[in-house]
Amino acid sequence: MRLTTPITLGELARVAAGTVSGESAFEVRGIASLEGAGADELTFARSASMRERATASAAGALLVPEDFGKTDRPAIIAPDVDLALALVGEYLAARECPPPPPGVHPSATVGEGASVGEGAGVGPGAVVEAGASVGARARIGAGVYLGHGVAVGEDTLIHANATVHWGCRIGARCVVHSGAVVGADGFGFARSPDGSYHKIPQLGNVVLEDDVELGACACIDRAMLDSTVIARGAKLDNLIHIAHNCRVGEGTAMAAQVGVAGSTRIGAGCQFGGQSGVVGHVRLGDGVRVGAGSPVIKSVADGVEVWGFPAREKSRALREMAGAARSGRLAEEIRALRRRLKALEADAPPAAGTGDS
Amino acid sequence: MRLTTPITLGELARVAAGTVSGESAFEVRGIASLEGAGADELTFARSASMRERATASAAGALLVPEDFGKTDRPAIIAPDVDLALALVGEYLAARECPPPPPGVHPSATVGEGASVGEGAGVGPGAVVEAGASVGARARIGAGVYLGHGVAVGEDTLIHANATVHWGCRIGARCVVHSGAVVGADGFGFARSPDGSYHKIPQLGNVVLEDDVELGACACIDRAMLDSTVIARGAKLDNLIHIAHNCRVGEGTAMAAQVGVAGSTRIGAGCQFGGQSGVVGHVRLGDGVRVGAGSPVIKSVADGVEVWGFPAREKSRALREMAGAARSGRLAEEIRALRRRLKALEADAPPAAGTGDS
Amino acid sequence: MRLTTPITLGELARVAAGTVSGESAFEVRGIASLEGAGADELTFARSASMRERATASAAGALLVPEDFGKTDRPAIIAPDVDLALALVGEYLAARECPPPPPGVHPSATVGEGASVGEGAGVGPGAVVEAGASVGARARIGAGVYLGHGVAVGEDTLIHANATVHWGCRIGARCVVHSGAVVGADGFGFARSPDGSYHKIPQLGNVVLEDDVELGACACIDRAMLDSTVIARGAKLDNLIHIAHNCRVGEGTAMAAQVGVAGSTRIGAGCQFGGQSGVVGHVRLGDGVRVGAGSPVIKSVADGVEVWGFPAREKSRALREMAGAARSGRLAEEIRALRRRLKALEADAPPAAGTGDS
Repeated sequence: MRLTTPITLGELARVAAGTVSGESAFEVRGIASLEGAGADELTFARSASMRERATASAAGALLVPEDFGKTDRPAIIAPDVDLALALVGEYLAARECPPPPPGVHPSATVGEGASVGEGAGVGPGAVVEAGASVGARARIGAGVYLGHGVAVGEDTLIHANATVHWGCRIGARCVVHSGAVVGADGFGFARSPDGSYHKIPQLGNVVLEDDVELGACACIDRAMLDSTVIARGAKLDNLIHIAHNCRVGEGTAMAAQVGVAGSTRIGAGCQFGGQSGVVGHVRLGDGVRVGAGSPVIKSVADGVEVWGFPAREKSRALREMAGAARSGRLAEEIRALRRRLKALEADAPPAAGTGDS
Repeated sequence: MRLTTPITLGELARVAAGTVSGESAFEVRGIASLEGAGADELTFARSASMRERATASAAGALLVPEDFGKTDRPAIIAPDVDLALALVGEYLAARECPPPPPGVHPSATVGEGASVGEGAGVGPGAVVEAGASVGARARIGAGVYLGHGVAVGEDTLIHANATVHWGCRIGARCVVHSGAVVGADGFGFARSPDGSYHKIPQLGNVVLEDDVELGACACIDRAMLDSTVIARGAKLDNLIHIAHNCRVGEGTAMAAQVGVAGSTRIGAGCQFGGQSGVVGHVRLGDGVRVGAGSPVIKSVADGVEVWGFPAREKSRALREMAGAARSGRLAEEIRALRRRLKALEADAPPAAGTGDS
Repeated sequence: MRLTTPITLGELARVAAGTVSGESAFEVRGIASLEGAGADELTFARSASMRERATASAAGALLVPEDFGKTDRPAIIAPDVDLALALVGEYLAARECPPPPPGVHPSATVGEGASVGEGAGVGPGAVVEAGASVGARARIGAGVYLGHGVAVGEDTLIHANATVHWGCRIGARCVVHSGAVVGADGFGFARSPDGSYHKIPQLGNVVLEDDVELGACACIDRAMLDSTVIARGAKLDNLIHIAHNCRVGEGTAMAAQVGVAGSTRIGAGCQFGGQSGVVGHVRLGDGVRVGAGSPVIKSVADGVEVWGFPAREKSRALREMAGAARSGRLAEEIRALRRRLKALEADAPPAAGTGDS
């Protein structure tokens, strides 16, 4: 990241709870990776094993751990580089992209009986419908729509142009990215004898428990009657689809473009590769891992890793795919056997009714 | 669904066109499934066969058909439970999430010559560009953008933050969910000899015929010259992509994340599993079924069910996949045959030029 | 496309830099394909080889090249039909869907220190945060959000309801379609020993170089520290996901719903079929082609075409799939060999320890 205005290394060390080695007045104008950093930027090395790459870096300043040893340029020495980096990052991000000021932007629309908590901000053009509540210190981005009776928890961040429909509940410390749609109607239709579809009302809601993160343009449909639930601490990436009545367990992580069909229940601590999918009405246990792109078409027990088209236990899938790849060679081997057999048969005494070619 | 204010069973029975058995003054505070309902909630059983589950339910009240028999708690008796449920659902949804009042919200922008029909509502921050028309009783959600000359039919519902670009036509009784984009440019580029791309203007439009439903973040691109058509009664789920110049037939249903490439024509009454896809410039007949996750790479005749990678007739795909799974066993069988053959050859009289190993 | 007001053929010829054959006063009320055009519409034929289809067309007027020969109805004769069509299309599109007038719509919000270039337009309800800059003649659609310090280049078009987050840079002559999200946080979490996730700050940005086009609801995540880069002239279709720290090379084209996981680097001039995907931390060379729906799970060299599940060199994938399809036949052949072998063994003299069944 480039900074719009520079900051001294000394100031950054204070933020990072570290100490400075070398020129404290060094002006940092950006933070970047070892390879990406320039002469006016700070980079970091997590351990002394990265010393060589750090030396080769063009960075003007370093952030290093205490056991890193002597540095050849101005540096911040920190007890925990990752923590220091998180602190510095948070500080600089807030400097570059200040949160909306607390309060409701004059261009926002707040309905009757809606409440906006202490220190919470509602951005330009956002809509908070009647009966909705925004928790303390929550931030509602520009153009966000919160439907009737929606509840948003404390310290939750809903980014610009996301949409949350009536009656949905979003926990504390959640992050909902731009373009996400929470609580659109589940895809429920009854088919008439003439083949036309009749919409089944979708009356339930979506519940995002605390500490859930939802990617850009992710779509979580409302349940038919009860709740579609994304349990505490689950992290869902961009463009994910979760159909009505599903449950995604605690701390489950899904990479982008995953899709889960209706009424499927997924356990805790699962991991989904990008573009994988699960059919409706099945159960995945805890700790299940699904490979990228793999469609899961039946239930999966706790702790199992699945992969392939369709998804099956990974070792079996790899064996079967290797087998398929071998099929050409098998045909060749069969041809060879047939030649040898023919030669033997030509030499054998005649026997009635047993030969076939 | 939980209700913000309770409603009596008697009042609900009136809405459901049913009669009450037991305490008419029972206060209903929510509707839920048999398993999800609590003591202050109404649940339902579609037939007497669900009696056992109904008895086990914690629900305070029931909605049951006339032949259900005696109930052990307050109940609504209705001739058609599904119809009663739809009526109740619609009534309560409108109570919890009232439609925008007819008329144009003061924060909306309506261009010159645009018309808003009788009883239609345009929500906060919505934009209706010049020459666009909104049919009677249609509802345009907050933040929706309707481009120049867009026509929206009667009783159509366009949810918050959806976008419809210039010249597109949306029929009557359609539902367009949040984040959907109708009429973005088709993906058309001419490649120059130097490898760079030159944009081909996309001048056509999108036509959604009557009774179409479009999921959240679904994207239907405008045709190059004519129209991309989603025919009457088709239902498309979230995050679907329909490329330029396609036609999706009447009453075809597509689950989430389906993608269809350009100029493909899909018949009536087809069903697509989630994450399936179709290449460009092919034709799928009427009543085609495509399995979840399956890429269709050629035309498919009427009524055929396809599945697999790539999609092929389902029975064939299953046979071939079973074959692939067997390949390991085949290799084993070939080894066994080779051993037996070797033994026979060792015993046979020598024969010139026939053996191979 | 249908026109809201007619235009004479003579006027269109002037726009197309062509000449008229026949009635110059002919009133054109639409442009359509050879098959789709009606009696009051203009259609086109790229060469004399399309003469038969042109003659069969119901179109009232034609746009044809100079060597087309005599036409049977009013026509525009142009040296380069594609160029003429582009000119006519651009002219008519601007007439039907006029760009927002230069300047900032009164309902838009422009932050402190933000700049809007000469001739640029900012639509209703759009938000341009502090420090952002909009280049000359750029057009920012209704409801668009441009975060702090975002830079938008000259002549770039950002369609309604797209979102660009803080610090991202968009080049000149880019097109960003509705619902696209540029610069949402990369999906980066550190897993604690207890299985819970801790968000890793995403401080980098997204850089779209000049002449990039981004489809509707496409999501390009910001880098952790440096930049996620979509290089000059790349064209990305709808609903695409590009994860943090990726680079997509110059002039690479991706069809809809492609997904690329983090830190992957893709070369120049590549082509991706719809719904294909690439895992994280791999490299694809220049000119790579990836088949529709195929997940790429390792690096690919320059110029290679891959396909299949998982993606592998296309010729190999096709061979292996054909082999898998043959497996059923192989089993049949093995059974036949076994029968023949059994017959031979029955006739052979006994030999110790070699037979197996």
